[in-house]
Amino acid sequence: MDETSQPIELLLSVSRAGSRTLGTQIEDQLRRAIREGALRPDARVPSTRDLAGQLGVSRRVVVDAYAQLAAEGYLSLRQGARPRVSGATGLASVASPPAMPPAGTATAPRARFDFRPSVPDVSTFPRAAWLRSLRTALATVTDADLGYGDPRGVEALRSALADYLGRVRGVVADPEHIIITNGYTQGLGLVCHALARAGAKRIALEDPSNPDDGLVAARAGLDPVPIGVDEAGTRVDELEQADADAVVLTPAHQHPTGAVLTGERRTALLAWLRDRDAIAIEDDYDAEYRYDRAAVGALQGLDPDRVVYAGSVSKTLAPALRIGWLVVPPALAQAVSHEKLLADRGTARIEQHAFADFLTRGELDRHLRRMRARYRARRDALVQALTEALPETSVRGVAAGLHVTVQLLDSDNEQTIREEAGHRRIELETMSDFRPNAAGRPPALVLGYAQMSEPAIRTGVHELALAVQAARVRA
Amino acid sequence: MDETSQPIELLLSVSRAGSRTLGTQIEDQLRRAIREGALRPDARVPSTRDLAGQLGVSRRVVVDAYAQLAAEGYLSLRQGARPRVSGATGLASVASPPAMPPAGTATAPRARFDFRPSVPDVSTFPRAAWLRSLRTALATVTDADLGYGDPRGVEALRSALADYLGRVRGVVADPEHIIITNGYTQGLGLVCHALARAGAKRIALEDPSNPDDGLVAARAGLDPVPIGVDEAGTRVDELEQADADAVVLTPAHQHPTGAVLTGERRTALLAWLRDRDAIAIEDDYDAEYRYDRAAVGALQGLDPDRVVYAGSVSKTLAPALRIGWLVVPPALAQAVSHEKLLADRGTARIEQHAFADFLTRGELDRHLRRMRARYRARRDALVQALTEALPETSVRGVAAGLHVTVQLLDSDNEQTIREEAGHRRIELETMSDFRPNAAGRPPALVLGYAQMSEPAIRTGVHELALAVQAARVRA
Repeated sequence: MDETSQPIELLLSVSRAGSRTLGTQIEDQLRRAIREGALRPDARVPSTRDLAGQLGVSRRVVVDAYAQLAAEGYLSLRQGARPRVSGATGLASVASPPAMPPAGTATAPRARFDFRPSVPDVSTFPRAAWLRSLRTALATVTDADLGYGDPRGVEALRSALADYLGRVRGVVADPEHIIITNGYTQGLGLVCHALARAGAKRIALEDPSNPDDGLVAARAGLDPVPIGVDEAGTRVDELEQADADAVVLTPAHQHPTGAVLTGERRTALLAWLRDRDAIAIEDDYDAEYRYDRAAVGALQGLDPDRVVYAGSVSKTLAPALRIGWLVVPPALAQAVSHEKLLADRGTARIEQHAFADFLTRGELDRHLRRMRARYRARRDALVQALTEALPETSVRGVAAGLHVTVQLLDSDNEQTIREEAGHRRIELETMSDFRPNAAGRPPALVLGYAQMSEPAIRTGVHELALAVQAARVRA
Repeated sequence: MDETSQPIELLLSVSRAGSRTLGTQIEDQLRRAIREGALRPDARVPSTRDLAGQLGVSRRVVVDAYAQLAAEGYLSLRQGARPRVSGATGLASVASPPAMPPAGTATAPRARFDFRPSVPDVSTFPRAAWLRSLRTALATVTDADLGYGDPRGVEALRSALADYLGRVRGVVADPEHIIITNGYTQGLGLVCHALARAGAKRIALEDPSNPDDGLVAARAGLDPVPIGVDEAGTRVDELEQADADAVVLTPAHQHPTGAVLTGERRTALLAWLRDRDAIAIEDDYDAEYRYDRAAVGALQGLDPDRVVYAGSVSKTLAPALRIGWLVVPPALAQAVSHEKLLADRGTARIEQHAFADFLTRGELDRHLRRMRARYRARRDALVQALTEALPETSVRGVAAGLHVTVQLLDSDNEQTIREEAGHRRIELETMSDFRPNAAGRPPALVLGYAQMSEPAIRTGVHELALAVQAARVRA
């Protein structure tokens, strides 16, 4: 026996006490020794006869363990030669995996006041009602529905959504042209892929808007082009010059400015879509919340052949559900369905059945009625507190959604205010978070109010005013 | 009053009996009339005063309804002018949406014998155990976990999977480098996007393999290149000439041939990965099922820095759950996590908590033990029936997974056999379904046995033999 096999005796031991077979114990210990570098590449290991004798096990056990390790590439077994650890080319790196700081585990101290927009009050998520719908779904789902199924989603949900969206948002929705997604972001990606494959090159995005939309469009091969937003909503007149084949917009409540696309702009947009033979993607992200009047109906209802309607439960129930939907022009339905197939073969189906049950039982309507009253009171508290504590600023946008935009003084600096707010553990976003190029634009804050109680909102705004003052002193 | 507003009187009526407001009734009826073309673009509608008088409602109600419709783009209201339906440019198409045959609704007669591979026996899906895990998840999930959360997925699940994959498949898995996906297809797309952004150009795919893999890779901007497969698994020697930056392979049980990548090939693959500085994507789709011996450990364990490990519950529990995972080399983890964010902001989180509970309670192990015995008996029944009914064919591949490959005579024609099988309502796939270019390749059938009882398998093979004979007579 030569010296290179010596460490084996020190490393290996087997026990007949546990539930694991002797062979498995040998395999596991050898695997670990090779991985951790205790056994180097090309090192000889004992013959099966020697090792069996050392460990007091039958030779068959060792032969099988070695064969397993050879099949996995750890050992090299050649007729007539002593067994060895596999060659250096394959294994050198295994011994020392590079260290890397774990991503996303930095634990920032929890915010005292969380004014970040875009997340609803999930503390009111109707857990009991949702469980009831899950139980119904599991009790009634067919075996066929536990397979891959139609990539567009479960028929019962597409039907229930067609009814709901027609009733609540004036969407013209045939269940055949509805595609269930894992939320808005995926839906945007699917449509962009379908458009790119149909020859589209450029897609207009509102400036300001969600910054990830541009990255999603670019992943699909489209070139994002910003177009402006003013008090009347998207600057439809800029579309011509943008030379775009499609446009993404938030007509009911522009994100994040809070403007509503006017009737004139809607008509102009439809004319552009027709002249250009273009497609609009309507991100109807929070239209369920309008506090001063009925929400403006969906743009999609005006031209279902040119407008893709996109919605989700992320602002109404909880982002964690990852359920969204697209209502797609008939001519695009097959292409978008195929993109969904290639994206992930369809959204989880038991939850789709649960959501269909939840919708048809009126649970979503009930939840929304409760939440509308709650959010309206929170918005009122926020606006009033801002008027009192920061009278030199102004709240922009209509009374809707889950956030407000606060226009600052032109001399204010968003970054300094954000830093001062951070020192006070106030979390917020600013307008430049939503702009591809924020230089020279009037400064503004984007404050969500969905997750905070009214007293917390009042105290939070008071502290925010101190942060704004401190920032001005620093400037 | 002019003639163009005449039809309005015929169209509109309001009722005080129902729960809907007078204004809503007016809005809905006008919207429908405009959409359906009963009111053409530019058509005048009655003044608010006239309509209020005709319907016997207060003028305020009609003013508000018109304002709503104008805001939605249906009506055009101008100071001093009579209200009109919005202009032709925007609305002409609404009147006549193009007819399109509904996609995917053709109802083929149900197969008598379903030999399609790739779907497990979902009739045994442990509904009660899964509901228990869902209930636990809903009772314990924190409010923070109902938000968007870490795009990589729920920490509890990533930890549980790291343990499970290490124990069962020899995967070296740090929860930090695990990304929960909506199944294998999405995982492949995420990795391809990350590789493409890091400069990769070409990706080698096994020939034969799942045909969608090439489309997924192409969507991410990679050029798919086929490499051969023989009895020893993937033809690693062809990688050099393929000039690829990455390779997708099924080492434990090649899909669909059933070959196992040998130890020598594994060593050669690792050498190539190192020399080329390339990445392998290990699709470990059905390695939980090996009937004649312990499954070969995952390739990933040999070089976690160069092998992406991909798995899912689609073959063990049910495709409908849409839960999968990637174990990613540390250097790629951040990029793949970002791709997941842009793909859909993360997989549904309540189900991730449920699956973590299911795993840690040992439910998956229990289910797999039950299913292994069942599938093994079905495979045995299939192989025996084939030996008896089609003795001139031969079953290829190791005793594993949920399907077998049946080598036909060189003179057999896959397409004719498929047609004859279809006449007998036997569903199956053939080798050409898995090849980018099947011309001149030896014909074979790919038969799944997971979804059929043993008697059904025997009868099905008997009928299949008749189909094969009929096809030979036709030739």
